[in-house]
Amino acid sequence: MKDTTDFSDLEVGYDVPALPGMDAADIQTPCLVLDLDALERNIKKMGDWAKAHGVRHRVHGKMHKSVDVALLQEKLGGSCGVCCQKVSEAEVFARGGITDVLVSNQVRDPAKIDRLARLPKLGARTICCVDDLANIADLSAAAQRHGTQIECLVEIDCGAGRCGVTRTADVVEIAQAIDAAEGLKFAGIQAYQGAMQHLDSYADRKAKIEIAVEMVRDAVNGLAAVGLECDIVGGGGTGSYYFEGTSGVYNELQCGSYAFMDADYGRILDENGNRIDDGEWENALFILTSVMSHAKAEKAIVDAGLKAQSVDSGLPVIYGRTDVKYIKCSDEHGVVEDPNGVLKVNDKLKLVPGHCDPTCNVHDWYVGVRGDKVETLWPVSARGKAY
Amino acid sequence: MKDTTDFSDLEVGYDVPALPGMDAADIQTPCLVLDLDALERNIKKMGDWAKAHGVRHRVHGKMHKSVDVALLQEKLGGSCGVCCQKVSEAEVFARGGITDVLVSNQVRDPAKIDRLARLPKLGARTICCVDDLANIADLSAAAQRHGTQIECLVEIDCGAGRCGVTRTADVVEIAQAIDAAEGLKFAGIQAYQGAMQHLDSYADRKAKIEIAVEMVRDAVNGLAAVGLECDIVGGGGTGSYYFEGTSGVYNELQCGSYAFMDADYGRILDENGNRIDDGEWENALFILTSVMSHAKAEKAIVDAGLKAQSVDSGLPVIYGRTDVKYIKCSDEHGVVEDPNGVLKVNDKLKLVPGHCDPTCNVHDWYVGVRGDKVETLWPVSARGKAY
Repeated sequence: MKDTTDFSDLEVGYDVPALPGMDAADIQTPCLVLDLDALERNIKKMGDWAKAHGVRHRVHGKMHKSVDVALLQEKLGGSCGVCCQKVSEAEVFARGGITDVLVSNQVRDPAKIDRLARLPKLGARTICCVDDLANIADLSAAAQRHGTQIECLVEIDCGAGRCGVTRTADVVEIAQAIDAAEGLKFAGIQAYQGAMQHLDSYADRKAKIEIAVEMVRDAVNGLAAVGLECDIVGGGGTGSYYFEGTSGVYNELQCGSYAFMDADYGRILDENGNRIDDGEWENALFILTSVMSHAKAEKAIVDAGLKAQSVDSGLPVIYGRTDVKYIKCSDEHGVVEDPNGVLKVNDKLKLVPGHCDPTCNVHDWYVGVRGDKVETLWPVSARGKAY
Repeated sequence: MKDTTDFSDLEVGYDVPALPGMDAADIQTPCLVLDLDALERNIKKMGDWAKAHGVRHRVHGKMHKSVDVALLQEKLGGSCGVCCQKVSEAEVFARGGITDVLVSNQVRDPAKIDRLARLPKLGARTICCVDDLANIADLSAAAQRHGTQIECLVEIDCGAGRCGVTRTADVVEIAQAIDAAEGLKFAGIQAYQGAMQHLDSYADRKAKIEIAVEMVRDAVNGLAAVGLECDIVGGGGTGSYYFEGTSGVYNELQCGSYAFMDADYGRILDENGNRIDDGEWENALFILTSVMSHAKAEKAIVDAGLKAQSVDSGLPVIYGRTDVKYIKCSDEHGVVEDPNGVLKVNDKLKLVPGHCDPTCNVHDWYVGVRGDKVETLWPVSARGKAY
């Protein structure tokens, strides 16, 4: 891991986009900027909600891939640990001091299973998901080989249509096999409904989660009937946490995007029909970009294109401006409609990315800003850790 | 720059997806794999074409962001230098031993201009684009400050609709100002038509380039009329190089994707109506991915999602298979339709990415494979160099 406090050998504009203490006006673009005040408020708010509702919050580290953000979520938000999607990510978080790590995904490759089994030696409680009986012998053998324990959640596919089983009978069968396996511990259920998080309508999201809750409730009851208790019943995202968190079935939330927000999530509506980025959560993450050509009167060309963001969930939105609009994205350029010619070369714009997770994954650094000053520089610690 | 030959401290699965000498079957997924035989054939073929047609080839380094690939293009393809889009990329190539570097883009930020003016001190001929008279004084002052020379191309917008001027009068005015500025040298014209490269029809692409060629010809004549010669008339991509290269006006091509190919480029048609990935160019770049869940009979879940690729130009295509199809991409997962249930957990698939440039930019390494063995490991040297 990069040392997150020693910047002495880093050159601004080559290694890093900025250095602590610098004026925000001197940040090199394009880069990711975090509004630290907004970030802290988001983290505290979600932590308070979970506490008030008697559920734990295991923050999703796959969104930010940052040890520093995860530690802040522990400190200000009282998070109980981190979830992430890859073994290499889990290693980054464990090495960075997170002591409770869930790989909320299947681990099947023999080399990855071996690495997972060594994670507890880094001081981290280690949990993964299982959706296939055939996985259990491999996990068990690896844990025994290293003299460690891997906790396992049975994954239920409650609507996302990816990994996971759908029948309670399968959940129970897999859980019993885990319970019987040396080196493994049955720890509960993973049931994240990812497909509905971005539905605009609150009622539509609620209806989808009601189905998920019923599936999970049935599984919990089925497990109880054979004497298996769930320490963790995990799931819930930024678009649904209030449903899972008040279900009486889930006891651990797994929100990620709430901390940073993005344009696609921001558009979904709360119970009162208001956008969730208009009161519920603040935009804390921005792509800072500069105008680098204005050869045509009515459009400005900015320096943030596909190498500075992912547009899988739509184009970025220019923050706080209605007079200019980001309308096109190519490899290195963004085209900004500027009908009144208000922008000048070297003007800076703050973009709210369309989708925060894959956008963070193309950058090496977060520039943490408070007011007009760069306060901190955080590596995107698990960037590129896709294995 | 990372040392590209010393792998002694790198751990497979954490730092790198593979190590030289390893069986290809042991590569950790998801990662980028280069078929070195196919890559070498593509590079040699384009180099031979340029030589046979009496034009130079300045390869586009923004595509691969790799010093190793650029050096191979010099060795096997006789490339005259590299173009790239950012000053930080240019620094990577210059530090890596490329001695002729064009930033085929505007450089406007004062800090970036200062860095550009220092590039010649790394031993590289340094060229950039200009589309605004107001840029010239800044470039000139920086070159004088560092006692260096920056060569400048006037950028013509010949259809891409981004940077660049459109009238010959403007080209001439900017060129004369460059010619008169201390520390700068007028070097010619940049005229890359990016917007048409991906049009399927050969005839449609030809029609677009004919417009571009006429604009450039007019500008070259206008410049000659005031006594300015163009050392470089640059442009041309994988979908058009045969038009620019035989135009009698362009003398320097700037192809990138031909070396790796991707699914979006592969679909465009040649003069005879054949896909260009069916004979003209070979797929040399793949995202290697593994099946990590098959809990549903008819679909397999693979470990390459949005963190392993950019889907801006469409989903990846599974190479050499018609029985299975990549149909959906989320952050960490791909959904593969497997109607006959032929895939098993841990099976590996080779994906041809939808768009190579932004896909390469999310990975740290290229795993170079020949036959069944990993032959080399190349860093994506300029990954994340977006400043």
